[in-house]
Amino acid sequence: MQLVQEQKCFGGRQIRYRHDSHTLNCGMQFSVFLPPQAEQGPVPAVYWLSGLTCTDENFSSKAGAQRVAAMLGLALIIPDTSPRGDGVADDPEGAYDLGLGAGFYVNATQAPWNKHYHMYDYVLSELPALVESELPLNGKRAISGHSMGGHGALVLALRNPERFVSVSAFAPISNPTDCPWGHKALSAYLGEDQAAWAEYDASLLLKAKGSSLPMLVDQGEADNFLAEQLRPQALQAAAEEAGAELELRLQPGYDHSYYFIASFIEDHLRFHARHLGA
Amino acid sequence: MQLVQEQKCFGGRQIRYRHDSHTLNCGMQFSVFLPPQAEQGPVPAVYWLSGLTCTDENFSSKAGAQRVAAMLGLALIIPDTSPRGDGVADDPEGAYDLGLGAGFYVNATQAPWNKHYHMYDYVLSELPALVESELPLNGKRAISGHSMGGHGALVLALRNPERFVSVSAFAPISNPTDCPWGHKALSAYLGEDQAAWAEYDASLLLKAKGSSLPMLVDQGEADNFLAEQLRPQALQAAAEEAGAELELRLQPGYDHSYYFIASFIEDHLRFHARHLGA
Repeated sequence: MQLVQEQKCFGGRQIRYRHDSHTLNCGMQFSVFLPPQAEQGPVPAVYWLSGLTCTDENFSSKAGAQRVAAMLGLALIIPDTSPRGDGVADDPEGAYDLGLGAGFYVNATQAPWNKHYHMYDYVLSELPALVESELPLNGKRAISGHSMGGHGALVLALRNPERFVSVSAFAPISNPTDCPWGHKALSAYLGEDQAAWAEYDASLLLKAKGSSLPMLVDQGEADNFLAEQLRPQALQAAAEEAGAELELRLQPGYDHSYYFIASFIEDHLRFHARHLGA
Repeated sequence: MQLVQEQKCFGGRQIRYRHDSHTLNCGMQFSVFLPPQAEQGPVPAVYWLSGLTCTDENFSSKAGAQRVAAMLGLALIIPDTSPRGDGVADDPEGAYDLGLGAGFYVNATQAPWNKHYHMYDYVLSELPALVESELPLNGKRAISGHSMGGHGALVLALRNPERFVSVSAFAPISNPTDCPWGHKALSAYLGEDQAAWAEYDASLLLKAKGSSLPMLVDQGEADNFLAEQLRPQALQAAAEEAGAELELRLQPGYDHSYYFIASFIEDHLRFHARHLGA
């Protein structure tokens, strides 16, 4: 784990690291915010999964999350959205919603994606093991994300409730087996077996398995992707059917951008802090 | 004044406009944040001048200023950093510190710059007249900025104290007649007559004319440009000599980036709000 850049921010440290990922079979960058409290001892962490086309930089520079994390004593762990580098497969037409910047937090089983695209395992196991061995983290984790990253956060938490104390999402792709983004990505990465897709669909997982995890979801009502791609109603219906603890908030007038995320990130971090004991 | 984009943010409106500037002799974009209070009636405005290479977008997306502006009932007016467009002169070598993105908030007198580079008049007169006629603003103004924009804010306020109630800056180019960035820009835009340069040097202006304006300046001590380009000591010495009301805060560990600005923007907006009666 090699330090690329460190910048002081709200009394804490905004840091970018580079490391060789054995899970992804390539070099990766990620960002971390360590709050001032980490100088005194280990702190809990909120993992943030970003959306299509993003790197670790978008959330770091645009969400205003460090201010709140510094108040609450939370670390932020911010991975990239796909494997990267010269040998990594990309969509032949350079589409924004497949390949680089669009890993969808799955373990790909289909060529050419299966050589590198194992973002599910990377975020679930390799990255936490790495940062928890190298940084002042106490091993308590919450997870959140935006759009494709909201999908990733929900799926990771629903399948691994012992790993996270709480999960939240902004405008998540809530039911990817039933939307164009999800169809395209899941068929490419996982092939045509829809049983495999179901393991990466938060609404289907919640309906099938239920969950006792606290879940908070914000969705802008002026989000252009709401009806066709995001479908939070499917998640809500699944939560009701399963008796799960989902708070879905529809926010009038907000779109899909970081202005929306910035407006509500404080609520999300306070929600996680309560469950993390921060 | 044509609306390009509008996005809800912290209950207010983040808006990008386009207009034909007669001062700059080209089409210009700028951004505005209107706080929720502007729905009820006119509000005061803080003008933000950005640094080298920036557009109106950097501050809008990275500073986290809307959260505070929404609390305090302040509008934010965020111009671009130079004239733009096909006919606008640029540095022949595409340097980042001259030409496009580097207008230095002066009225250029030298060819080829004098055809469009009148950012001083644009920010001082045309832009306020435009937004105050079209938007719910009460005509009270404060001004702030970063680096080249900190220079611009200080110069505009020191030369026009009747136009602004307060001025602040992050890492301003405090003494441009005596640093490489300033030498390069002022000689290009104004020619070799150094008496003309002095009209755009905050330290010389303050020393010569004094000021009763409240001034707040933050400077990161880990800023790579501090010693060679920024020279806040010159501003401080001028303030002491003139008996002016400058609070200069040296912030240990902070660099020149938006992480530094985000960390202290709340202090600056609260400072301006007090003087704006917000």
